[in-house]
Amino acid sequence: MHDNAQPLLSKINIPADLRKLKLDSLPQLCDEVRQFIIDELSHNPGHLAASLGTVELTVALHYVFNTPYDRLVWDVGHQAYGHKILTGRRECFHTNRKYKGLCGFPNPAESEYDAFIAGHASNSISAALGMSIASLQSEEHKDRQVIAIIGDGALSGGLAFEGLNNTGTYPNNLLIILNDNHIAIDPIKGGMSQYLLNITTSKTYNRVRYELYRFFRKMGLINEQGKAKIQRITNMIKSTLARQNNIFEAMNIRYFGPIDGHDVKDMVRIIKDIKDFTGPKVLHCITTKGKGYKPAEECATEWHAPGLFDKDTGKRIVKKTNGRPPHFQDVFGYTLLELARTNRDILGITPAMPSGSSLNIMMGEMPNRCFDVGIAEGHAVTFSAGLAKEGKIPFCTIYSTFLQRAYDNIIHDVAIQNLPVVLCIDRAGVVGADGATHHGAFDIAYLRCIPNIIVSAPYNESELRSLMYTASTGKYGAFAIRYPRGTGFLVDWETPMEEIPIGTGRCLKTGNDLAVLSLGAIGNTAAEAIVHAERQSGKTVAHFDMRFAKPIDEKLLHEIASSHKKIITVEDGVVEGGFGSAVLEFLSDNGFSPEIRRIGIPDRFVEHGSPAELYAELGMDEAGIRKELLEMLEE
Amino acid sequence: MHDNAQPLLSKINIPADLRKLKLDSLPQLCDEVRQFIIDELSHNPGHLAASLGTVELTVALHYVFNTPYDRLVWDVGHQAYGHKILTGRRECFHTNRKYKGLCGFPNPAESEYDAFIAGHASNSISAALGMSIASLQSEEHKDRQVIAIIGDGALSGGLAFEGLNNTGTYPNNLLIILNDNHIAIDPIKGGMSQYLLNITTSKTYNRVRYELYRFFRKMGLINEQGKAKIQRITNMIKSTLARQNNIFEAMNIRYFGPIDGHDVKDMVRIIKDIKDFTGPKVLHCITTKGKGYKPAEECATEWHAPGLFDKDTGKRIVKKTNGRPPHFQDVFGYTLLELARTNRDILGITPAMPSGSSLNIMMGEMPNRCFDVGIAEGHAVTFSAGLAKEGKIPFCTIYSTFLQRAYDNIIHDVAIQNLPVVLCIDRAGVVGADGATHHGAFDIAYLRCIPNIIVSAPYNESELRSLMYTASTGKYGAFAIRYPRGTGFLVDWETPMEEIPIGTGRCLKTGNDLAVLSLGAIGNTAAEAIVHAERQSGKTVAHFDMRFAKPIDEKLLHEIASSHKKIITVEDGVVEGGFGSAVLEFLSDNGFSPEIRRIGIPDRFVEHGSPAELYAELGMDEAGIRKELLEMLEE
Repeated sequence: MHDNAQPLLSKINIPADLRKLKLDSLPQLCDEVRQFIIDELSHNPGHLAASLGTVELTVALHYVFNTPYDRLVWDVGHQAYGHKILTGRRECFHTNRKYKGLCGFPNPAESEYDAFIAGHASNSISAALGMSIASLQSEEHKDRQVIAIIGDGALSGGLAFEGLNNTGTYPNNLLIILNDNHIAIDPIKGGMSQYLLNITTSKTYNRVRYELYRFFRKMGLINEQGKAKIQRITNMIKSTLARQNNIFEAMNIRYFGPIDGHDVKDMVRIIKDIKDFTGPKVLHCITTKGKGYKPAEECATEWHAPGLFDKDTGKRIVKKTNGRPPHFQDVFGYTLLELARTNRDILGITPAMPSGSSLNIMMGEMPNRCFDVGIAEGHAVTFSAGLAKEGKIPFCTIYSTFLQRAYDNIIHDVAIQNLPVVLCIDRAGVVGADGATHHGAFDIAYLRCIPNIIVSAPYNESELRSLMYTASTGKYGAFAIRYPRGTGFLVDWETPMEEIPIGTGRCLKTGNDLAVLSLGAIGNTAAEAIVHAERQSGKTVAHFDMRFAKPIDEKLLHEIASSHKKIITVEDGVVEGGFGSAVLEFLSDNGFSPEIRRIGIPDRFVEHGSPAELYAELGMDEAGIRKELLEMLEE
Repeated sequence: MHDNAQPLLSKINIPADLRKLKLDSLPQLCDEVRQFIIDELSHNPGHLAASLGTVELTVALHYVFNTPYDRLVWDVGHQAYGHKILTGRRECFHTNRKYKGLCGFPNPAESEYDAFIAGHASNSISAALGMSIASLQSEEHKDRQVIAIIGDGALSGGLAFEGLNNTGTYPNNLLIILNDNHIAIDPIKGGMSQYLLNITTSKTYNRVRYELYRFFRKMGLINEQGKAKIQRITNMIKSTLARQNNIFEAMNIRYFGPIDGHDVKDMVRIIKDIKDFTGPKVLHCITTKGKGYKPAEECATEWHAPGLFDKDTGKRIVKKTNGRPPHFQDVFGYTLLELARTNRDILGITPAMPSGSSLNIMMGEMPNRCFDVGIAEGHAVTFSAGLAKEGKIPFCTIYSTFLQRAYDNIIHDVAIQNLPVVLCIDRAGVVGADGATHHGAFDIAYLRCIPNIIVSAPYNESELRSLMYTASTGKYGAFAIRYPRGTGFLVDWETPMEEIPIGTGRCLKTGNDLAVLSLGAIGNTAAEAIVHAERQSGKTVAHFDMRFAKPIDEKLLHEIASSHKKIITVEDGVVEGGFGSAVLEFLSDNGFSPEIRRIGIPDRFVEHGSPAELYAELGMDEAGIRKELLEMLEE
């Protein structure tokens, strides 16, 4: 990054510097920002395509508005790299998503320019509406502008609709920028996106124009004079339709657009024009995801978060995985396809994550049996409940952190009716670079308090397959299987599947001085720690892979508690109310009082970094677990 | 209820009987059903107004469709009393909402005619879409019809939008009946409702017609011939607009309507006409909530669930409460107003429950500082977070069971940013007649695993006021205060408010043989039980009102655990992961191993009944708690 390669950008430390530029300089600045993002992301992976699509928008917004006094609320943060670069974080942008470095999403704790947290999609309108009303109601900040920037992908989330539905109800000056690129991570299929496309292409208008043309022809008005009349009347109808028949206008939100989201000068002019209109308003901008970087434009899904790449050739640098264990998500994907081939009732459901969850593997072979429902986790679960109600066995795959958005759907629509919905909870536990908003920390605790639900976690790929097979029998109600982000442990993972009796753990090794009870894949780390701790202490440690947090294996726990005075529980989730607490409850209810330590995610939000760094920080890596083991063995 | 008063209804035991009637008889049947509902509800309270509004719709649907083979998915169940009466439950309808009697909502466990659970609003489209797709994909049930019946109130929920957004994407034959009465429990304010009103009144069409008229005048076409032309062209535009510019049509859902939802014969004809069109479709019916019972038509909010009433005079039979303690919700309502009078930053937020939560008390005096955001719990919380981000202190009041729908919003938008949002959780614990879908059972467990959140529960009205005052200082982050449905304990409840140090409990009484640790108002039941148990056993029991489930009072717990070998925890929530587990965690982490019993809601869904009946069933009434105390004292 040399200053002479970035003559404008290198002088912009804060947006106030940007606002000193002439309007005519902005296109060049946009080029520099775009090039900066491509350069940086080629060697420090992150979310590329979305941020390339919003370069002009970002520059225009900071040019027109008085940030940070005015508030930009990004939804979701993928779009906001340009924003970070222009708001004092260019020099440290190489630390993006790294341990102790910049957060990958806007984060008010990091910068006053980040007005609101933006890890989960669809929250911007609700939050910004609150901020706009609060400002308007204060004496000092009446003139504060609040701007929500939301993609059409995020607009499929029910929360965004709830916010929109409420925006026209109370006095506020919210500006909603609709960043419409017709793609979330994967292409969007929903009705609202289609609706926006209709606005854009004026299908309605074309239809009316066609009908008018037919009418005029019938009336004998199709001559030179008639053509001019048609032109005038259709223009009039066009503008009337745009205003009056628009869902936003109907909701009391003034609608402007659509405009070209890559013409920065035009955008500056338009935003300046509309910003002082009182009342809520939408500006509809058409953008291209990956704009300005050809490989990303051509395949935006692949380039959503491409990892390392060669910026000149546009080739993604894919690490060879030959001979390495696969990702858990791929084991899920291939196993689901395998099960679906022999069981016609199995269906696959994902809320906007076909590639992230590897449901796309089944999708390729069985498109009619897979459903990408958009960013709509609540719907994904209730929809699955509906499928299950009519005899299907839906495998609904959702990241742990996003399953939080379907909590009531799990309780009300699945568990109360005891329907056989399989919840495949991907990215459970510490996830790494996405940080505090994305760790799958809470699912064990928030699920195991619900009646009628099975909460399980496989030790490895083989157990994942067997748990999926067990769930696929449809003999049970809600069946949660949680597994981590990243690679597993077995090179030869295509093991035979067998039914696992519900609520049973297994003994991995015996030992006399301490019992380790682990849940899920973190048990592998515990196993390593046990090897080292036994060597160091000369004592022996038993290890149990409990597999189920609910129902917990009471028979096995009786045996363990009867023969061990010291117990350590290990889980990749919060310790408050988690698996370890389930063990405590059993022991207390059954009159056992061994010495217990519970290892898991502590009661605070965990920031970003590599999983290795974070596990080390949390005392959940091999060294951390070993330390606890040794302490307890030496007591 | 005499047969001669119900000549048609008395002969209808199942919908197949109804389908034998002539079309011309249906209006009379509707009258009989309506009168039956009014009669029954006048002496057995329930949800009156919504079900009166759907009488014709219910009769028409069962007349046209082959229920139960075809599926009616009601959203929410308030509308479905007529449905219950016509589907084999007329004779036992007097047990509605009573212990061991009929459930107040459709419930598949109760009847094969109840296709899906319907306690929480907005889930019908998602569930019915799943059911429609599953049927279409099966060999045997391809011809099954699935019908979702949703009010415009429920349509403000994000889940309904997510479902709608997804409906046009996959092959299905779903029929959505939009029951549009412009009121939920309280009148609806949202944009979507406004949009529907626009469709109804053809505002757009009128605008276009006006513009056309002006154009034709300019063109000199306003003469007799011109008028005819205008008529013809505007008719053409009208039908084009209805099809093309409709949000449903744009989403690939065929739109029909609006039609009169009280003309049963017309509805039968229309539904017959459209039912065999393939693909998803919406039928927009305009109804009047409370239809046919004048007092309810005139004040639908008051008559949503009116309690007992004199059906002839239309007077509600309100029990006198002079000299009785007030409802907790009213203490909340009056106290919030009191606090808001002296603290300008305090705002009130409710998702569609101003009367149910008593936020209407503050609303009356400070309409600009209160926000009814519609059935949109997620938005309510994120919106509150936005308000808090700009310095306000939002009191967001939500029933415990509905707060489940805002779970991610609490974690992602409030807790991570540590914003001072006060969550006033009404109807926490066992709620009574509304049953399994409505008990506030899970909030302690699902909240206390979240970092940065305070989880508290007042022992009585006075403590509720002090906790609200403490939260109103804005010194803390997310602050949850949970309190039960129903009346409190203090006639003179307007006690002075004082700040309660966070995470502190208090000793209510000392004792030597056992310590009872209670959380919240159920502590009063525990106190009674202690009096009796001491008298019966001759031993003494200490009682601590812990007040906070998080942070838990570690200092007090140290004292208790150091001086007591037997502990009983009492809470009005699930025992899995709840307050009692928090106590277990503390004790385990600190090397204490007293004998412990945890009293709370067991790990199963609890049905409906009066709170007294349910607490008795669950062993959480005075007798149940006393039994546990005596058992433990005698050991």
